[in-house]
Amino acid sequence: MAPLRPATQTVGILGGMGPAAGADFARLFVEACSERMVQLGIPVHDQAYPEHWLAQVPIPDRTAALDDTRAGAHQPAEPLLQATGRLAALGARAVAIACNTAHAWHGLLQQRFPQLVVLHGVQEVVARLAARQVGSVGLLATRGAYDAGLYQGELERAGITCHLPTEDERERLMQGIYDGVKAGNYVLARQRFESVALALQQRHGVATLVMGCTEIPLALSEGGRLPGLALVNPSAVLAAALARQAYLDAVPAAT
Amino acid sequence: MAPLRPATQTVGILGGMGPAAGADFARLFVEACSERMVQLGIPVHDQAYPEHWLAQVPIPDRTAALDDTRAGAHQPAEPLLQATGRLAALGARAVAIACNTAHAWHGLLQQRFPQLVVLHGVQEVVARLAARQVGSVGLLATRGAYDAGLYQGELERAGITCHLPTEDERERLMQGIYDGVKAGNYVLARQRFESVALALQQRHGVATLVMGCTEIPLALSEGGRLPGLALVNPSAVLAAALARQAYLDAVPAAT
Repeated sequence: MAPLRPATQTVGILGGMGPAAGADFARLFVEACSERMVQLGIPVHDQAYPEHWLAQVPIPDRTAALDDTRAGAHQPAEPLLQATGRLAALGARAVAIACNTAHAWHGLLQQRFPQLVVLHGVQEVVARLAARQVGSVGLLATRGAYDAGLYQGELERAGITCHLPTEDERERLMQGIYDGVKAGNYVLARQRFESVALALQQRHGVATLVMGCTEIPLALSEGGRLPGLALVNPSAVLAAALARQAYLDAVPAAT
Repeated sequence: MAPLRPATQTVGILGGMGPAAGADFARLFVEACSERMVQLGIPVHDQAYPEHWLAQVPIPDRTAALDDTRAGAHQPAEPLLQATGRLAALGARAVAIACNTAHAWHGLLQQRFPQLVVLHGVQEVVARLAARQVGSVGLLATRGAYDAGLYQGELERAGITCHLPTEDERERLMQGIYDGVKAGNYVLARQRFESVALALQQRHGVATLVMGCTEIPLALSEGGRLPGLALVNPSAVLAAALARQAYLDAVPAAT
Protein backbone atom coordinates (compact mmCIF):
# COMPACT_ATOMS: atom_id res chain seq x y z
CA MET A 1 0.00 0.00 0.00
CA ALA A 2 2.90 2.41 0.65
CA PRO A 3 5.89 1.85 -1.68
CA LEU A 4 9.11 3.71 -0.89
CA ARG A 5 9.31 7.34 -1.94
CA PRO A 6 11.65 7.84 -4.90
CA ALA A 7 14.39 10.47 -4.54
CA THR A 8 12.88 13.71 -5.80
CA GLN A 9 13.84 17.37 -5.88
CA THR A 10 11.45 20.13 -4.87
CA VAL A 11 10.53 22.33 -7.84
CA GLY A 12 8.60 25.55 -8.32
CA ILE A 13 6.26 27.05 -10.89
CA LEU A 14 6.14 30.81 -11.50
CA GLY A 15 2.50 31.40 -12.37
CA GLY A 16 -0.15 34.09 -12.34
CA MET A 17 0.58 35.11 -15.96
CA GLY A 18 -2.39 34.51 -16.29
CA PRO A 19 -3.68 32.46 -13.38
CA ALA A 20 -5.69 30.04 -15.55
CA ALA A 21 -2.51 29.22 -17.47
CA GLY A 22 -0.61 28.77 -14.18
CA ALA A 23 -3.19 26.28 -12.88
CA ASP A 24 -3.13 24.46 -16.21
CA PHE A 25 0.66 24.28 -15.99
CA ALA A 26 0.34 22.57 -12.58
CA ARG A 27 -1.99 20.01 -14.19
CA LEU A 28 0.45 19.41 -17.06
CA PHE A 29 3.32 19.06 -14.57
CA VAL A 30 1.44 16.41 -12.56
CA GLU A 31 0.71 14.53 -15.81
CA ALA A 32 4.37 14.81 -16.83
CA CYS A 33 5.42 13.42 -13.43
CA SER A 34 3.12 10.40 -13.91
CA GLU A 35 4.69 9.79 -17.32
CA ARG A 36 8.19 10.19 -15.90
CA MET A 37 7.42 7.66 -13.15
CA VAL A 38 6.19 5.16 -15.72
CA GLN A 39 9.40 5.70 -17.75
CA LEU A 40 11.53 5.16 -14.64
CA GLY A 41 9.55 2.14 -13.43
CA ILE A 42 8.34 3.94 -10.28
CA PRO A 43 4.84 2.87 -9.09
CA VAL A 44 2.56 5.91 -9.43
CA HIS A 45 1.02 6.97 -6.09
CA ASP A 46 0.47 10.25 -4.20
CA GLN A 47 3.67 10.11 -2.17
CA ALA A 48 5.87 9.39 -5.23
CA TYR A 49 5.29 12.89 -6.68
CA PRO A 50 7.88 15.56 -6.01
CA GLU A 51 7.08 18.41 -3.66
CA HIS A 52 6.15 21.36 -5.84
CA TRP A 53 4.84 24.84 -5.26
CA LEU A 54 2.77 26.95 -7.62
CA ALA A 55 3.22 30.70 -7.04
CA GLN A 56 0.32 32.61 -8.57
CA VAL A 57 1.35 36.20 -7.98
CA PRO A 58 0.15 39.39 -9.68
CA ILE A 59 2.83 40.33 -12.24
CA PRO A 60 2.54 43.53 -14.32
CA ASP A 61 1.65 42.81 -17.93
CA ARG A 62 4.70 41.53 -19.83
CA THR A 63 3.85 42.88 -23.28
CA ALA A 64 2.97 46.31 -21.89
CA ALA A 65 6.30 46.37 -20.02
CA LEU A 66 8.35 45.41 -23.09
CA ASP A 67 6.59 48.22 -24.91
CA ASP A 68 7.24 50.87 -22.25
CA THR A 69 10.85 51.19 -21.18
CA ARG A 70 10.47 54.48 -19.29
CA ALA A 71 11.93 54.47 -15.78
CA GLY A 72 9.15 53.98 -13.27
CA ALA A 73 6.89 52.06 -15.66
CA HIS A 74 5.31 48.97 -14.13
CA GLN A 75 7.86 46.25 -14.72
CA PRO A 76 7.56 42.49 -14.07
CA ALA A 77 11.20 42.10 -13.02
CA GLU A 78 10.79 42.88 -9.32
CA PRO A 79 7.75 40.64 -8.58
CA LEU A 80 9.28 37.86 -10.73
CA LEU A 81 12.50 38.06 -8.70
CA GLN A 82 10.56 38.13 -5.41
CA ALA A 83 8.45 35.09 -6.31
CA THR A 84 11.52 33.18 -7.51
CA GLY A 85 13.29 33.97 -4.24
CA ARG A 86 10.33 32.68 -2.28
CA LEU A 87 10.26 29.46 -4.33
CA ALA A 88 14.00 29.07 -3.61
CA ALA A 89 13.33 29.62 0.11
CA LEU A 90 10.68 26.87 -0.04
CA GLY A 91 13.42 24.52 -1.21
CA ALA A 92 12.89 24.57 -4.97
CA ARG A 93 15.96 23.44 -6.93
CA ALA A 94 14.44 24.09 -10.36
CA VAL A 95 11.83 26.59 -11.52
CA ALA A 96 9.65 26.85 -14.61
CA ILE A 97 8.17 30.15 -15.83
CA ALA A 98 4.54 29.52 -16.86
CA CYS A 99 4.49 32.39 -19.38
CA ASN A 100 6.27 32.57 -22.74
CA THR A 101 6.58 36.37 -22.87
CA ALA A 102 8.06 36.47 -19.34
CA HIS A 103 11.04 34.55 -20.73
CA ALA A 104 12.32 38.00 -21.71
CA TRP A 105 13.38 38.12 -18.02
CA HIS A 106 14.78 34.57 -17.94
CA GLY A 107 18.40 35.73 -18.05
CA LEU A 108 17.88 38.07 -15.11
CA LEU A 109 16.25 35.35 -12.98
CA GLN A 110 18.94 32.78 -13.76
CA GLN A 111 21.69 35.32 -13.07
CA ARG A 112 20.26 36.36 -9.70
CA PHE A 113 19.56 32.76 -8.60
CA PRO A 114 22.61 30.77 -9.75
CA GLN A 115 21.76 28.03 -7.23
CA LEU A 116 18.51 27.30 -9.13
CA VAL A 117 17.97 25.74 -12.52
CA VAL A 118 15.63 28.26 -14.16
CA LEU A 119 14.34 26.30 -17.14
CA HIS A 120 14.07 28.10 -20.48
CA GLY A 121 10.77 27.07 -22.03
CA VAL A 122 11.52 28.53 -25.47
CA GLN A 123 14.83 26.63 -25.71
CA GLU A 124 13.08 23.44 -24.61
CA VAL A 125 10.49 23.83 -27.37
CA VAL A 126 13.08 24.55 -30.06
CA ALA A 127 15.19 21.56 -28.94
CA ARG A 128 12.09 19.35 -29.19
CA LEU A 129 11.29 20.68 -32.70
CA ALA A 130 14.90 20.17 -33.82
CA ALA A 131 14.91 16.60 -32.45
CA ARG A 132 11.82 15.91 -34.53
CA GLN A 133 13.47 17.49 -37.60
CA VAL A 134 10.71 20.06 -38.05
CA GLY A 135 11.89 22.46 -40.76
CA SER A 136 9.40 25.30 -40.39
CA VAL A 137 6.72 26.47 -38.00
CA GLY A 138 4.11 29.17 -37.65
CA LEU A 139 4.30 31.18 -34.43
CA LEU A 140 1.30 32.41 -32.44
CA ALA A 141 2.41 34.71 -29.61
CA THR A 142 1.93 38.06 -27.88
CA ARG A 143 3.13 41.31 -29.36
CA GLY A 144 5.75 41.39 -26.60
CA ALA A 145 7.12 37.98 -27.53
CA TYR A 146 7.29 38.93 -31.25
CA ASP A 147 8.97 42.27 -30.54
CA ALA A 148 11.50 40.68 -28.16
CA GLY A 149 12.20 37.98 -30.79
CA LEU A 150 11.96 35.31 -28.07
CA TYR A 151 11.22 32.43 -30.42
CA GLN A 152 12.62 33.82 -33.68
CA GLY A 153 16.21 33.94 -32.43
CA GLU A 154 16.21 30.42 -30.98
CA LEU A 155 14.47 28.98 -34.05
CA GLU A 156 16.95 30.66 -36.40
CA ARG A 157 19.91 29.24 -34.46
CA ALA A 158 18.37 25.78 -34.90
CA GLY A 159 17.85 26.36 -38.64
CA ILE A 160 14.05 26.28 -38.35
CA THR A 161 12.08 28.74 -40.50
CA CYS A 162 9.59 30.80 -38.48
CA HIS A 163 6.49 32.21 -40.17
CA LEU A 164 4.96 35.21 -38.43
CA PRO A 165 1.45 36.70 -38.59
CA THR A 166 0.85 40.10 -40.18
CA GLU A 167 0.26 43.21 -38.06
CA ASP A 168 -3.48 42.78 -38.38
CA GLU A 169 -3.28 39.11 -37.37
CA ARG A 170 -1.11 39.97 -34.34
CA GLU A 171 -3.81 42.39 -33.26
CA ARG A 172 -6.37 39.57 -33.53
CA LEU A 173 -4.15 37.33 -31.37
CA MET A 174 -3.88 40.07 -28.72
CA GLN A 175 -7.69 40.35 -28.71
CA GLY A 176 -7.96 36.58 -28.24
CA ILE A 177 -5.45 36.63 -25.39
CA TYR A 178 -6.62 39.76 -23.53
CA ASP A 179 -10.34 40.25 -24.36
CA GLY A 180 -10.64 36.46 -24.71
CA VAL A 181 -8.84 34.15 -22.28
CA LYS A 182 -7.64 36.71 -19.71
CA ALA A 183 -11.16 38.18 -19.52
CA GLY A 184 -12.87 34.78 -19.47
CA ASN A 185 -14.32 34.90 -23.02
CA TYR A 186 -13.14 31.61 -24.52
CA VAL A 187 -15.46 31.72 -27.53
CA LEU A 188 -13.96 34.99 -28.73
CA ALA A 189 -10.46 33.64 -28.00
CA ARG A 190 -10.91 30.48 -30.04
CA GLN A 191 -12.35 32.38 -33.00
CA ARG A 192 -9.39 34.79 -33.04
CA PHE A 193 -6.74 32.07 -32.62
CA GLU A 194 -8.29 29.80 -35.25
CA SER A 195 -8.54 32.55 -37.83
CA VAL A 196 -4.83 33.40 -37.49
CA ALA A 197 -3.82 29.72 -37.47
CA LEU A 198 -5.70 29.14 -40.72
CA ALA A 199 -4.22 32.29 -42.29
CA LEU A 200 -0.66 31.08 -41.52
CA GLN A 201 -1.49 27.64 -42.87
CA GLN A 202 -2.92 29.02 -46.11
CA ARG A 203 -0.24 31.66 -46.70
CA HIS A 204 2.85 29.61 -45.78
CA GLY A 205 1.68 26.00 -45.86
CA VAL A 206 2.89 25.44 -42.31
CA ALA A 207 2.06 22.05 -40.78
CA THR A 208 3.31 22.88 -37.26
CA LEU A 209 2.10 25.76 -35.12
CA VAL A 210 3.80 26.85 -31.89
CA MET A 211 1.22 28.20 -29.43
CA GLY A 212 3.77 30.60 -27.95
CA CYS A 213 1.55 32.16 -25.27
CA THR A 214 0.23 30.12 -22.33
CA GLU A 215 -3.29 31.50 -22.88
CA ILE A 216 -3.57 30.12 -26.43
CA PRO A 217 -3.79 26.36 -25.67
CA LEU A 218 -6.53 27.14 -23.12
CA ALA A 219 -8.82 28.03 -26.05
CA LEU A 220 -7.25 26.36 -29.10
CA SER A 221 -7.07 22.59 -29.53
CA GLU A 222 -6.16 20.19 -32.31
CA GLY A 223 -8.75 18.34 -34.30
CA GLY A 224 -11.79 19.13 -36.41
CA ARG A 225 -11.39 22.82 -37.08
CA LEU A 226 -7.67 22.83 -37.87
CA PRO A 227 -7.10 19.79 -40.12
CA GLY A 228 -3.47 19.20 -41.11
CA LEU A 229 -2.04 21.40 -38.36
CA ALA A 230 0.04 19.96 -35.50
CA LEU A 231 -0.15 22.25 -32.47
CA VAL A 232 2.85 22.47 -30.13
CA ASN A 233 1.99 23.43 -26.53
CA PRO A 234 5.15 24.91 -24.98
CA SER A 235 3.63 24.49 -21.49
CA ALA A 236 3.51 20.71 -21.96
CA VAL A 237 7.11 20.66 -23.21
CA LEU A 238 8.30 22.81 -20.28
CA ALA A 239 6.28 20.74 -17.77
CA ALA A 240 8.05 17.60 -19.03
CA ALA A 241 11.43 19.32 -18.60
CA LEU A 242 10.47 20.29 -15.02
CA ALA A 243 9.44 16.69 -14.29
CA ARG A 244 12.86 15.49 -15.50
CA GLN A 245 14.47 17.92 -13.04
CA ALA A 246 12.22 16.71 -10.21
CA TYR A 247 13.23 13.06 -10.76
CA LEU A 248 16.90 13.81 -11.58
CA ASP A 249 18.13 11.79 -8.60
CA ALA A 250 15.61 8.99 -9.22
CA VAL A 251 17.22 8.01 -12.52
CA PRO A 252 18.85 4.56 -12.18
CA ALA A 253 22.65 4.88 -12.22
CA ALA A 254 22.84 2.52 -15.20
CA THR A 255 20.99 4.81 -17.62
CA MET B 1 -5.41 48.41 -20.48
CA ALA B 2 -4.48 48.21 -16.77
CA PRO B 3 -7.44 48.76 -14.41
CA LEU B 4 -6.70 49.25 -10.70
CA ARG B 5 -6.04 46.13 -8.66
CA PRO B 6 -8.96 45.29 -6.33
CA ALA B 7 -8.15 44.78 -2.64
CA THR B 8 -7.42 41.08 -2.24
CA GLN B 9 -6.10 38.77 0.46
CA THR B 10 -3.41 36.18 -0.21
CA VAL B 11 -4.76 32.65 0.18
CA GLY B 12 -3.26 29.17 0.17
CA ILE B 13 -4.21 25.71 -1.03
CA LEU B 14 -3.01 22.59 0.79
CA GLY B 15 -2.61 20.06 -2.01
CA GLY B 16 -0.73 16.93 -2.93
CA MET B 17 -3.58 14.67 -1.73
CA GLY B 18 -3.38 13.61 -4.57
CA PRO B 19 -1.47 16.02 -6.77
CA ALA B 20 -3.92 15.80 -9.71
CA ALA B 21 -6.71 16.86 -7.36
CA GLY B 22 -4.55 19.70 -6.02
CA ALA B 23 -3.91 21.03 -9.52
CA ASP B 24 -7.62 20.70 -10.33
CA PHE B 25 -8.43 22.66 -7.18
CA ALA B 26 -6.20 25.50 -8.39
CA ARG B 27 -8.15 25.52 -11.67
CA LEU B 28 -11.47 25.59 -9.83
CA PHE B 29 -10.21 28.41 -7.59
CA VAL B 30 -9.19 30.53 -10.60
CA GLU B 31 -12.65 29.93 -12.12
CA ALA B 32 -14.31 30.83 -8.82
CA CYS B 33 -12.25 34.06 -8.69
CA SER B 34 -13.45 35.00 -12.19
CA GLU B 35 -17.06 34.43 -11.10
CA ARG B 36 -16.51 36.42 -7.90
CA MET B 37 -15.08 39.33 -9.91
CA VAL B 38 -18.11 39.32 -12.20
CA GLN B 39 -20.41 39.31 -9.13
CA LEU B 40 -18.49 42.23 -7.63
CA GLY B 41 -18.31 44.19 -10.89
CA ILE B 42 -14.51 43.95 -11.07
CA PRO B 43 -13.11 43.78 -14.65
CA VAL B 44 -11.48 40.35 -15.04
CA HIS B 45 -7.75 40.56 -15.89
CA ASP B 46 -4.53 38.89 -14.73
CA GLN B 47 -3.63 41.45 -12.08
CA ALA B 48 -7.12 41.40 -10.49
CA TYR B 49 -6.67 37.84 -9.18
CA PRO B 50 -5.55 37.38 -5.58
CA GLU B 51 -2.05 36.12 -4.87
CA HIS B 52 -2.39 32.42 -4.13
CA TRP B 53 0.00 29.57 -3.47
CA LEU B 54 -0.57 25.90 -4.14
CA ALA B 55 1.48 23.64 -1.85
CA GLN B 56 1.76 20.16 -3.35
CA VAL B 57 3.60 18.28 -0.62
CA PRO B 58 3.87 14.54 0.00
CA ILE B 59 1.41 13.73 2.81
CA PRO B 60 1.12 10.19 4.23
CA ASP B 61 -2.08 8.47 3.17
CA ARG B 62 -5.03 9.82 5.17
CA THR B 63 -7.20 6.69 5.18
CA ALA B 64 -4.24 4.50 6.15
CA ALA B 65 -3.43 6.88 9.01
CA LEU B 66 -7.01 6.94 10.34
CA ASP B 67 -6.86 3.14 10.29
CA ASP B 68 -3.55 2.85 12.14
CA THR B 69 -3.36 4.78 15.40
CA ARG B 70 -0.16 3.19 16.70
CA ALA B 71 2.48 5.64 17.90
CA GLY B 72 5.12 6.03 15.18
CA ALA B 73 2.76 5.18 12.34
CA HIS B 74 3.06 7.55 9.37
CA GLN B 75 0.70 10.37 10.19
CA PRO B 76 -0.36 13.31 8.02
CA ALA B 77 -0.55 15.77 10.93
CA GLU B 78 3.10 16.91 10.91
CA PRO B 79 3.47 17.58 7.15
CA LEU B 80 0.00 19.20 7.08
CA LEU B 81 1.04 21.54 9.92
CA GLN B 82 4.37 22.30 8.23
CA ALA B 83 2.76 23.11 4.88
CA THR B 84 0.13 25.28 6.58
CA GLY B 85 2.86 27.15 8.44
CA ARG B 86 4.70 27.79 5.19
CA LEU B 87 1.51 29.07 3.54
CA ALA B 88 1.03 31.39 6.53
CA ALA B 89 4.64 32.58 6.16
CA LEU B 90 3.95 33.35 2.49
CA GLY B 91 1.21 35.70 3.65
CA ALA B 92 -1.87 33.51 3.31
CA ARG B 93 -4.83 34.72 5.38
CA ALA B 94 -7.11 31.82 4.49
CA VAL B 95 -6.33 28.23 3.55
CA ALA B 96 -8.33 25.47 1.84
CA ILE B 97 -7.55 21.77 2.28
CA ALA B 98 -7.81 20.08 -1.15
CA CYS B 99 -8.68 16.66 0.32
CA ASN B 100 -11.92 15.61 1.98
CA THR B 101 -10.43 12.90 4.20
CA ALA B 102 -7.71 15.28 5.47
CA HIS B 103 -10.50 17.32 7.07
CA ALA B 104 -10.12 14.86 9.97
CA TRP B 105 -7.14 17.13 10.86
CA HIS B 106 -9.02 20.40 10.26
CA GLY B 107 -9.50 21.09 13.97
CA LEU B 108 -5.78 20.65 14.67
CA LEU B 109 -4.77 23.01 11.83
CA GLN B 110 -7.26 25.70 12.84
CA GLN B 111 -6.23 25.42 16.51
CA ARG B 112 -2.50 25.75 15.75
CA PHE B 113 -3.00 28.62 13.29
CA PRO B 114 -5.64 30.85 14.90
CA GLN B 115 -4.47 33.78 12.73
CA LEU B 116 -5.63 31.91 9.60
CA VAL B 117 -9.10 31.08 8.39
CA VAL B 118 -8.81 27.34 7.71
CA LEU B 119 -11.91 26.69 5.63
CA HIS B 120 -13.93 23.55 6.39
CA GLY B 121 -14.89 22.04 3.04
CA VAL B 122 -17.39 19.57 4.49
CA GLN B 123 -19.25 22.31 6.37
CA GLU B 124 -19.28 24.45 3.21
CA VAL B 125 -20.86 21.59 1.23
CA VAL B 126 -23.49 20.86 3.87
CA ALA B 127 -24.37 24.56 4.12
CA ARG B 128 -24.82 24.66 0.33
CA LEU B 129 -27.06 21.54 0.39
CA ALA B 130 -29.13 22.96 3.24
CA ALA B 131 -29.54 26.29 1.41
CA ARG B 132 -30.89 24.35 -1.58
CA GLN B 133 -33.23 22.37 0.69
CA VAL B 134 -31.77 19.02 -0.33
CA GLY B 135 -33.32 16.40 1.95
CA SER B 136 -31.14 13.39 1.27
CA VAL B 137 -27.89 12.55 -0.48
CA GLY B 138 -25.73 9.57 -1.37
CA LEU B 139 -22.12 9.82 -0.23
CA LEU B 140 -19.11 8.60 -2.20
CA ALA B 141 -15.93 8.83 -0.12
CA THR B 142 -12.84 7.04 1.15
CA ARG B 143 -12.95 4.43 3.86
CA GLY B 144 -11.19 6.94 6.12
CA ALA B 145 -13.85 9.58 5.57
CA TYR B 146 -16.67 7.08 6.26
CA ASP B 147 -14.98 5.74 9.39
CA ALA B 148 -14.27 9.24 10.73
CA GLY B 149 -17.90 10.20 10.01
CA LEU B 150 -16.70 13.43 8.36
CA TYR B 151 -19.82 14.02 6.30
CA GLN B 152 -22.35 11.97 8.26
CA GLY B 153 -22.14 14.13 11.41
CA GLU B 154 -22.44 17.45 9.57
CA LEU B 155 -25.30 16.18 7.40
CA GLU B 156 -27.18 14.85 10.41
CA ARG B 157 -26.87 18.21 12.21
CA ALA B 158 -28.42 19.83 9.11
CA GLY B 159 -31.25 17.29 9.02
CA ILE B 160 -30.10 15.78 5.72
CA THR B 161 -30.35 12.00 5.32
CA CYS B 162 -27.08 10.40 4.21
CA HIS B 163 -27.14 7.11 2.27
CA LEU B 164 -23.92 5.12 2.47
CA PRO B 165 -22.51 2.38 0.22
CA THR B 166 -22.23 -1.20 1.43
CA GLU B 167 -18.88 -2.67 2.50
CA ASP B 168 -18.41 -4.18 -0.94
CA GLU B 169 -19.23 -0.89 -2.64
CA ARG B 170 -16.78 0.99 -0.39
CA GLU B 171 -14.10 -1.44 -1.50
CA ARG B 172 -14.95 -0.64 -5.12
CA LEU B 173 -14.63 3.09 -4.40
CA MET B 174 -11.21 2.53 -2.82
CA GLN B 175 -10.14 0.63 -5.95
CA GLY B 176 -11.33 3.52 -8.12
CA ILE B 177 -9.49 6.06 -5.97
CA TYR B 178 -6.19 4.19 -5.42
CA ASP B 179 -5.77 1.75 -8.35
CA GLY B 180 -7.70 4.19 -10.54
CA VAL B 181 -7.08 7.96 -10.21
CA LYS B 182 -4.04 7.93 -7.92
CA ALA B 183 -2.33 5.37 -10.19
CA GLY B 184 -3.38 7.13 -13.41
CA ASN B 185 -6.02 4.57 -14.53
CA TYR B 186 -9.07 6.77 -15.17
CA VAL B 187 -11.02 4.12 -17.08
CA LEU B 188 -10.98 1.77 -14.07
CA ALA B 189 -11.82 4.69 -11.78
CA ARG B 190 -14.87 5.78 -13.76
CA GLN B 191 -16.20 2.23 -13.95
CA ARG B 192 -15.93 1.76 -10.18
CA PHE B 193 -17.42 5.15 -9.30
CA GLU B 194 -20.32 4.81 -11.74
CA SER B 195 -21.25 1.34 -10.50
CA VAL B 196 -21.49 2.55 -6.89
CA ALA B 197 -23.35 5.71 -7.91
CA LEU B 198 -25.95 3.65 -9.76
CA ALA B 199 -26.26 1.22 -6.86
CA LEU B 200 -27.01 4.07 -4.43
CA GLN B 201 -29.49 5.55 -6.88
CA GLN B 202 -31.32 2.25 -7.37
CA ARG B 203 -31.31 1.21 -3.70
CA HIS B 204 -32.23 4.53 -2.10
CA GLY B 205 -33.62 6.63 -4.94
CA VAL B 206 -31.10 9.40 -4.25
CA ALA B 207 -31.09 12.30 -6.71
CA THR B 208 -28.01 14.04 -5.28
CA LEU B 209 -24.57 12.47 -4.88
CA VAL B 210 -21.75 14.07 -2.91
CA MET B 211 -18.38 13.19 -4.48
CA GLY B 212 -16.68 13.30 -1.08
CA CYS B 213 -13.13 12.55 -2.23
CA THR B 214 -11.17 14.94 -4.46
CA GLU B 215 -10.17 12.08 -6.78
CA ILE B 216 -13.75 11.16 -7.67
CA PRO B 217 -14.73 14.21 -9.78
CA LEU B 218 -11.51 13.72 -11.79
CA ALA B 219 -13.06 10.55 -13.27
CA LEU B 220 -16.81 10.93 -12.71
CA SER B 221 -18.92 13.55 -14.46
CA GLU B 222 -22.59 14.32 -14.86
CA GLY B 223 -24.47 13.51 -17.97
CA GLY B 224 -25.14 10.52 -20.18
CA ARG B 225 -24.21 7.62 -17.95
CA LEU B 226 -25.81 8.86 -14.74
CA PRO B 227 -29.25 10.22 -15.75
CA GLY B 228 -31.27 11.75 -12.92
CA LEU B 229 -28.27 12.19 -10.62
CA ALA B 230 -26.97 15.63 -9.61
CA LEU B 231 -23.31 15.41 -8.65
CA VAL B 232 -21.94 17.77 -5.99
CA ASN B 233 -18.21 18.51 -6.30
CA PRO B 234 -16.99 19.62 -2.85
CA SER B 235 -13.81 21.02 -4.42
CA ALA B 236 -15.87 23.51 -6.45
CA VAL B 237 -17.85 24.52 -3.35
CA LEU B 238 -14.67 24.96 -1.29
CA ALA B 239 -12.95 26.85 -4.12
CA ALA B 240 -15.87 29.31 -4.18
CA ALA B 241 -15.56 29.78 -0.40
CA LEU B 242 -11.82 30.47 -0.79
CA ALA B 243 -12.54 33.02 -3.54
CA ARG B 244 -14.98 34.81 -1.19
CA GLN B 245 -12.17 35.01 1.41
CA ALA B 246 -9.73 36.30 -1.20
CA TYR B 247 -12.07 39.17 -2.18
CA LEU B 248 -13.35 39.85 1.35
CA ASP B 249 -11.99 43.40 1.32
CA ALA B 250 -13.15 44.01 -2.26
CA VAL B 251 -16.84 43.79 -1.33
CA PRO B 252 -18.47 47.23 -1.75
CA ALA B 253 -19.33 48.71 1.66
CA ALA B 254 -22.98 49.01 0.65
CA THR B 255 -23.57 45.26 0.32
